[in-house]
This record gives sequence, structure tokens and C-alpha cells, in this order.
Amino acid sequence: MDKERLEKQLAFILEADKEKNIIRQTHLTDHGRRENDAEHAWHMAVMTYLLKEYANEKIDLAKTMMMVLIHDIVEIDAGDTYAYDPEAKKTQEEREAAAADRIFSLLPEDQGKELLALFREFEENETPEARFAKTMDNMQPMLLNHSNGASDWKEHGVAKSQVMKRNARTAAGSEALWGYMKGIIDEHTANGELKDE
Amino acid sequence: MDKERLEKQLAFILEADKEKNIIRQTHLTDHGRRENDAEHAWHMAVMTYLLKEYANEKIDLAKTMMMVLIHDIVEIDAGDTYAYDPEAKKTQEEREAAAADRIFSLLPEDQGKELLALFREFEENETPEARFAKTMDNMQPMLLNHSNGASDWKEHGVAKSQVMKRNARTAAGSEALWGYMKGIIDEHTANGELKDE
Repeated sequence: MDKERLEKQLAFILEADKEKNIIRQTHLTDHGRRENDAEHAWHMAVMTYLLKEYANEKIDLAKTMMMVLIHDIVEIDAGDTYAYDPEAKKTQEEREAAAADRIFSLLPEDQGKELLALFREFEENETPEARFAKTMDNMQPMLLNHSNGASDWKEHGVAKSQVMKRNARTAAGSEALWGYMKGIIDEHTANGELKDE
Repeated sequence: MDKERLEKQLAFILEADKEKNIIRQTHLTDHGRRENDAEHAWHMAVMTYLLKEYANEKIDLAKTMMMVLIHDIVEIDAGDTYAYDPEAKKTQEEREAAAADRIFSLLPEDQGKELLALFREFEENETPEARFAKTMDNMQPMLLNHSNGASDWKEHGVAKSQVMKRNARTAAGSEALWGYMKGIIDEHTANGELKDE
């Protein structure tokens, strides 16, 4: 066994542990605490496996699961950027690219390149796997928020137009799931929990 | 689209959210808080992808990743049973079997059966995927604990013999990784952080 190789892999694995401390805006079901990146990614991977039948195109399952498991890892350095915070959004790309370079280079070179490519593939959103992963990334917090009576949207005063903009690429991963999600958006718009402006 | 089918899938996905509130004994790196089941499973799935080259036998990657992602889901009802708590261990099997029946039956019948089988396959430890998943289940907390100077073992006064017993099946998943883990055990035994009795 190549011990140096294993130690690089384990260095990355320990670094990844820090994702458990990156707190998102979304709250757990039953009006729980805010969730962290590792929990969000775990939930997305479970969803990917269970909802794959709704993907518009055939996806490589293991690849998509790993993509969702690590898609937020750059936030260890760059922090979480709330989807409805326009100021933070401006610098997000640059902060996250630098973080990706640092974090993936902890791995042996072949795996570092592989994961960096997987991370960029998610960001570029141009393959069936990336498109479905993006659908999961948008659907997971919406499900939690919906279960809590849209409390996250109410807290931030989010408008329907913002949610529609964020979900511009959701249907490209799954028309079927987007159809269901639109129903959630319409419901919370109709009852005023999502601002209709 | 079969809306009733999707709603069953989403009911399971929301139920699974509760894993984020099941607290384990293991502490995060940098002497952090104790981790929860969802975080533990996320970490194991990332490890499965990155360390698969060390599996003794060829494994189906997506299957193994899903197995580790849901292997603790019964703890939503049955609670976490610390590996070194002999009293709780006695009733663990019965509590967890009842929980599996309830939780997996939230899913559409085909997926409920599939996930229950995957859960039992992990427990029975008789396939390449289950053996490697077990290795991950034992290695992940050991890595965190090692990074914290064996603080979890010290807190519970754990003996080397207990760790060796818990790891009786670790080598069956990966001789190479077990070799590395034995080094960790020996190091903490030599410096007295693991009781040698």
C-alpha cells in the first residue's frame, strides 16, 4: 500500500469534516435549528437515489451522488452564500474558485483533478448529472421550508420572483419534480407567505 | 406522473430529516461538538467514493454509497446505541427491526422493499458492499477520534480489547485500511490513551 497516497486522502477527508460547521439559512423540519452543509448534502444524495426516476435524462448514479455530496465543500473557506443575498453573490465565484484549488489539492493528484472536475461540472450545469444535481439542490431546502410553513421565506421576506429566478434551471434536471415544486410556490404565494411582486 | 408515488417518496425524505437530530458519541475534528447520524453517513459516503480502491473485493459504488447513507436511519425511532454500551446493545436488534418496518414502509412498496433489503444487507455483513460499508462505519469515527487525541476513548475509558472486538469485521472489507487503523490503535495504546487490559 502507498501510505503517502492514503494519508493525502485522509487529509482531505478530515478537512471535509469542517462542512459540518457551515450553517445554511434553511431550518430542519419541525421548526428545528438551521442545517449545515454536510446534512444538506447527505439529504440531497438520499434524494438523488430515491428520485432518479424523475430525471429528464439518464444519469450516472454514483457520479451524481458524489457530485451532490461535495458540491458545497468550497464553503469551508468561502462561507455559505444565501441564495437571496445579491451583495454576497457578487464575490461568490471568485471566493469559491480559490477554495476549490486549495481543498482539492489536498488529495492525490488524480483524485484532486477528478473532484475538481466534478465540482466544476456541477457549477457549469451542462451535463445530465449536473442538471439533476441542481434540481436536488433547489428542491431539498424547498421541501424543508414547505414543511415549516415557508418560515424561511417569511423570515427573509422573499418574493415569488426571486424563487422563480433561483429555480430557472430546476426544470432542466426534472420537468416532473419542477411541476411539483411549482405547486408549492403557488400555494405559498396564494396564502401570502411568499411575496407576489 | 404518479403524484401519490412521489408523495410517499417525499414523506420518507422528510422523515429521514430527523436523522440530523440523532446525536452520536463521536466528536467533530478540532474538539468540536458531537456529530449526528446524517453527518456521519455523509462522511462515510464521501469516504466510500474516495477509498474504494482499498476494498478487498470489487464493490457496486452507488449501492454501497446508498447503504452507508441510510444504515443508521432506524435510530430515528431506536436511538443511537454507543458501540461500547453492553446494556443498550442487548435490546438494539429488536428496537431497530421495528423501526425499519415503520420507516421503510413510508416509501412506495418497491422502494420500501429495496431499502429494507439494503439495510438488512448492511446488518448481515455478507456481501462485498456490506463488508466495505462496515469498514467505513468503523473507520470514520476512528479518524475523528484520532484527530482529537483519542478524546472519545478517554472520555468513556475504552479498552483496546473493546476496540479490537468492535473491529472484528473491519479487515473483511479492507485489509489495507485495517492495517492503517491498527497503527492508530497501537499508537493510542502505547501512550495510554486506550486502556491495555
